[in-house]
Amino acid sequence: MESIAKLIKELTRLPGIGEKTATRLAYYIARGHKDKALGLSSAISDVARKLKFCPDCLNLTEESYCRICNDPQRNKSIICVVEEAQDVLAIEKTGSFNGIYHVLHGSISPLDGMGPDDIKAAELIDRLKKTSVKELIIATNPTTSGEATALYIAKLAKPHGIAITRIAFGIPFGGDIEYVDKSTLGRSIATRSNLNV
Amino acid sequence: MESIAKLIKELTRLPGIGEKTATRLAYYIARGHKDKALGLSSAISDVARKLKFCPDCLNLTEESYCRICNDPQRNKSIICVVEEAQDVLAIEKTGSFNGIYHVLHGSISPLDGMGPDDIKAAELIDRLKKTSVKELIIATNPTTSGEATALYIAKLAKPHGIAITRIAFGIPFGGDIEYVDKSTLGRSIATRSNLNV
Repeated sequence: MESIAKLIKELTRLPGIGEKTATRLAYYIARGHKDKALGLSSAISDVARKLKFCPDCLNLTEESYCRICNDPQRNKSIICVVEEAQDVLAIEKTGSFNGIYHVLHGSISPLDGMGPDDIKAAELIDRLKKTSVKELIIATNPTTSGEATALYIAKLAKPHGIAITRIAFGIPFGGDIEYVDKSTLGRSIATRSNLNV
Repeated sequence: MESIAKLIKELTRLPGIGEKTATRLAYYIARGHKDKALGLSSAISDVARKLKFCPDCLNLTEESYCRICNDPQRNKSIICVVEEAQDVLAIEKTGSFNGIYHVLHGSISPLDGMGPDDIKAAELIDRLKKTSVKELIIATNPTTSGEATALYIAKLAKPHGIAITRIAFGIPFGGDIEYVDKSTLGRSIATRSNLNV
């Protein structure tokens, strides 16, 4: 049973996977079809072997530059700044952004040992110096660390004389005002906009 | 990004892993250390290649017979019947059972397409015929399908004239009577035992 104990240990290293979930997954893999397990195994090693960081936006890519930076149709003068590579995927799915990205690979959170130098902010400022960017949309999370990061990036970028914007936060579509948390509701009132009727 | 899309798809095949969790895990693997990802990948393929079923108890093993069936110290006249291989691990961790096991690899649940022939019950009855078993402890789950399986196994084993027992169900240690669900509380009252003072 050594191999299953080893798999359980490896699985518990993943975020949000405790020993019980790891055990359940490991046994599921062990008693399932061999081909399915080998498919998962090779998908993981492929990701580890093939993916690298785009030298411009620091998104994950299999090519020398990422698909978005490579696309001549994208508006290179608007950069959307996100915390993680999966945020790029989420925003791309909306289909409402045609600019390019910058992945910070983290947010400023001193309690988690993440200082301003631990995120890819210097790389962003380098891009502002080298290319003609008109707007920076800061799309970090509406959390303490995401807000701190947004402010930090905004201050760094300010001397470059470009527009610096923040994505909107408020009641989600399909949400219910009665049940929305008070921070969200408060923010949605404070950032209310004119109804053009 | 094809390799990450493939990994997300493979991960969503695991039980309890939806698309959001799969995406989070895949990106975690992708941006982490290559060695860690390759370690996980080989742990999965090892499990798929090395593990097989013990021909006696149907538990998972890397040897020709499982560690428990192979152990001369174990009492071969008591068989504990469980639904899944991970239940063996859970019972072994208690240290309170010195017999051997039988893994049914499922429970009877017609709604999930699991009939009596889909569990390894015939294999259990074969063991009762071939070896001298004195007691069968039925340790299936306290669910509708686990209870149905327990009754089915008990009826099959009855003609063999051996003791057939069921593990006890009731308030868990550290539990609070006020908050325990009514089925558990009802069962704990119905199966009360004498306090020998």
